[in-house]
Amino acid sequence: MIVETICVGTELLLGNTVNTNAAYLAGQYAALGMNSYYQTVVGDNAERIVECVKLALSRSDMVVMCGGLGPTPDDITRETVAELLGRKLYEDETTLERIRDWFGSRGLHMSENNRRQAMVPEDAVILDNDNGMAPGILIRLRPEERARLGRAGAEDQTILLLPGPPEELSVIWENRVKPILQKEAGEVICSSMVKVCGRSESEVAELLDDLINSRGDVTVAPYAKTGEVHMRLTARAADEKTAKKLIKPVIKDIKGRLGDSVYTTQEDVTLEKALVELLLANHLTVTTAESCTGGLIAARLVNVPGVSEIFKCGFVTYSNKAKRKLIGVKRKTLDKFGAVSAEVVREMAEGAAFYSKSDVSVAVSGIAGPDGGTEEKPVGLVYIGVNVCGNIRVKEFRFSGNREKVRNQTVASAMILLRECILGYYSRLTFGEKENG
Amino acid sequence: MIVETICVGTELLLGNTVNTNAAYLAGQYAALGMNSYYQTVVGDNAERIVECVKLALSRSDMVVMCGGLGPTPDDITRETVAELLGRKLYEDETTLERIRDWFGSRGLHMSENNRRQAMVPEDAVILDNDNGMAPGILIRLRPEERARLGRAGAEDQTILLLPGPPEELSVIWENRVKPILQKEAGEVICSSMVKVCGRSESEVAELLDDLINSRGDVTVAPYAKTGEVHMRLTARAADEKTAKKLIKPVIKDIKGRLGDSVYTTQEDVTLEKALVELLLANHLTVTTAESCTGGLIAARLVNVPGVSEIFKCGFVTYSNKAKRKLIGVKRKTLDKFGAVSAEVVREMAEGAAFYSKSDVSVAVSGIAGPDGGTEEKPVGLVYIGVNVCGNIRVKEFRFSGNREKVRNQTVASAMILLRECILGYYSRLTFGEKENG
Repeated sequence: MIVETICVGTELLLGNTVNTNAAYLAGQYAALGMNSYYQTVVGDNAERIVECVKLALSRSDMVVMCGGLGPTPDDITRETVAELLGRKLYEDETTLERIRDWFGSRGLHMSENNRRQAMVPEDAVILDNDNGMAPGILIRLRPEERARLGRAGAEDQTILLLPGPPEELSVIWENRVKPILQKEAGEVICSSMVKVCGRSESEVAELLDDLINSRGDVTVAPYAKTGEVHMRLTARAADEKTAKKLIKPVIKDIKGRLGDSVYTTQEDVTLEKALVELLLANHLTVTTAESCTGGLIAARLVNVPGVSEIFKCGFVTYSNKAKRKLIGVKRKTLDKFGAVSAEVVREMAEGAAFYSKSDVSVAVSGIAGPDGGTEEKPVGLVYIGVNVCGNIRVKEFRFSGNREKVRNQTVASAMILLRECILGYYSRLTFGEKENG
Repeated sequence: MIVETICVGTELLLGNTVNTNAAYLAGQYAALGMNSYYQTVVGDNAERIVECVKLALSRSDMVVMCGGLGPTPDDITRETVAELLGRKLYEDETTLERIRDWFGSRGLHMSENNRRQAMVPEDAVILDNDNGMAPGILIRLRPEERARLGRAGAEDQTILLLPGPPEELSVIWENRVKPILQKEAGEVICSSMVKVCGRSESEVAELLDDLINSRGDVTVAPYAKTGEVHMRLTARAADEKTAKKLIKPVIKDIKGRLGDSVYTTQEDVTLEKALVELLLANHLTVTTAESCTGGLIAARLVNVPGVSEIFKCGFVTYSNKAKRKLIGVKRKTLDKFGAVSAEVVREMAEGAAFYSKSDVSVAVSGIAGPDGGTEEKPVGLVYIGVNVCGNIRVKEFRFSGNREKVRNQTVASAMILLRECILGYYSRLTFGEKENG
C-alpha cells in the first residue's frame, strides 16, 4: 500500500512550527510496512489544498491529511475535502456529546465555534479523539469518486483526516487507525526495535551487513542517533505469531554479534530508561557531577518516572570553587592539571559519590565552546569519569560540532560509559565468584 | 516572489529525521518577505524528484532543493536536476581545491566519492560551503529551459541546490544566498524581532490587535513558544535606512504597550541569554535548586557562553534528604507541608543562595507526573521560588500536559519569574532612592 501525507497549516509555511507530525506518521507507515514516497505541506487555502489532494489521490492509495480541523475560521480541511468529494457535512451527535462533555467536565463554556468540530462528511468513519475535540475522519472513496479522482487501477482508496496537535494526532492513530489498518491488511506486519549504544553506525552496518542487505523475510533498517543506532526489524506473515517467529531468531543473531551494546528490544525504552532499570535492578543509587553539561545528565535521568528510588541528588559544579566546596576536588589537582583533565574528573566522580552517599556516580568536565579552547585543550575535549562502588574509570573524548552538539554527545557518552562500567563491574564479580567457586 | 522547498531524502520518508530544514528555510523566506505556498518531501529517486521539480517550476519563481548532494551513490539531486535541464556537469576546480584542503587540514585522505561533490552544472553560480564539502548551486533558468519547464508568465526562475546537513545549509543561506536575494530584490526587506515573555499569546494579540491586523507598511506576525511570544516585524522600502525607519516607531509602540515583558529586540538573544545579561549587568551571581526539572534550568543557563562569571554551581535535589543535606531545608517543613509546597520551595531558595554564597537563586518543586498526583496536589502543580538578595517570592503554578510539557513550562516560568524579580528589585531600589533623595 502506498500512503502519503499532506500537512495543512500556514504556521508550517512560515517556519513557526517544525513538522514533527510528518516524521511521526512516516515512522508509523514504516513500522506497518506501508510505502510512502511524498510528503506535502500546504497552507490553509482551499484551492491549493484541493490541488494537493488531487495530486496525492492520483498516485497513492491512502492520503493522510493533518491539521485544519480546529474551531477557527481558517481551519478548512474538513469542508474543503467534503466539497471536493461532493459529500455533505452533518453534525455527528456522538461527537457533539463528547465535545460538550469535555467542556462540561472542565467547567468551561462551549462556544459555537467548537460546534463546527462535530461536523463530519456523510458516510465516513468517525475516529474518537481521546486528547481533544476534533475527531479523526476516515473516508473510503466511493466507486464514482475513485473514477473521477482516483489513481488508475487502485481498488480501494481512502482519505484520512487527523487533527494537527501532535498529542491528538498520535492518540487517534494509535488507538483507532492502526487497528483498522492491521485488520484490513489481511496479512500482519510485525515490527520490532533493537537499540544499540556505544557503537558507530558504520560499525553496526559492517557487523550486520548481510542482515541489512538481505532480501529475506525480515528487513533490518538502521538509523543513527547521538551515541546510538536504532534498528527496525519488520516481517510480514499471515498472522502475528508467524511474523514474530520470523523476527525472533534475527534479534537473537543481532544480540549475538553486538553483545551488550544492545540495550533494549523495546520500542519505548530510551537509553536513560534502560540505565535507570539497570541501576534499580542492582539496587545502586546514583549521582551526577556536571561541568560543561550543566545539569543535562541529571535532567535525562529525571526524565524517567520512578527514578527517585535511585537518584537522590546531582551537582552542577561549573566553577572551580564549586568543584572544591561541593564535591571535594583538591585545589592542588585543579592548579596542576586544570579543570578539564582526567585527574579532576576522577576526583569529581569520587567526591560526588562520597558527599551524596551514592553507590555510583558519573562526572564530566570539558570545553563545549565556542570559546575557551587552546591548542593543548581544544573545544570538544571532554573527560568523563564513572565511579561504581569505588572502582573509577576515566575516559577522554574529542567531540566535534558546536556547543550544543558537544554537550549532547557528552550526555550520551556519559550514560553509555556509566552503563558499560556497571555491566563490567558485575561481570567481573560473577567471574570472580566462579573463579573462587 | 514565490518560493517553494523540496527536501530530498529517504530518511525523511522513513521518519528517522525531523524536517528542521523546511522550517528554517520557511522562516528565512518569511523574513525576506517572500511568499511560500508549498513544501515537498521526496525520496532519493530520480523519477520522483523530476516530477516534483517540474511541478514546483510550474507554480513558483524559485525552487529551493535541499539534500542529496552527499558523496554516496544514493545522493542524486545534482545529477537529476542537471539532466532535467539538459546541462552538462563539470568538475569545478575551486571546489575541488576547497574539498582537498578540507581533508588535508584534518590529515585525512580524500576518497574518490568526495570528488563527485565538486561536480557542478554548467553556467551556475557556485556558493561556497564554509561548514562542509558540497557547495550550494544556484541555477538561473535559460529562456529555452523556462519555455519548456517554467511557470507561464514568469520572467526569471531559479533552482537553488543546498546540502542537507542543517549547519551547512544555513551557513550557505546566510553567507551566500541572502546577499544575492537582497541585491536582486531592488527593494530592501527589513525584519526585526520582538520577543516577549510572561504573557500569553491571546493577551499579546489583544494588546496589539490594531498592529497585527493593520494593512500598513509594517507587518507584525506573532507566534507562541513555551512561556514566550515572538513577533516578526517586516517592512519593505527602497533602501535599508527607510525600512528601518518604518519599523523603529512600531517597536517603540510595542514596548510602550507591553513594558518589561519585551525582553529583547534581537533575533539571536534567547530568554536565557537575556537573563544572563541582566545578571551580568547587575553583578549578581546565581544558583539553582531543582527538583522536578532535574537540572534543566541550570542546563539552560549553561547554554549561554560566558555564564561562568555569574553561575558557579547548581543543586539537583530530587529527594527530601538531598533538600535537607545540600541546601538546608528543615525536616519539620518537609514533614508538615510536603516537598511540593510553597514553604519548602521558600527554604530551597534561601538555602541554595546561602550554601553557594550566591546573590540570587531560583528553586522549583513540583509534580511532573505521570504518577505522584493526588486530589489535593495534582500532576502539574509546581512551586517556583526566587531569592534576590534575601527578598524571596514564591509563586504557585498549575500546568497541564505530560511530564515533558510540565517540565518545559516549569523551566520557562522559572526563568521568567527570576527575571521579573530582579527587575522588580531594582525598580524598587531606584524608587526608594528617589524617595530618599
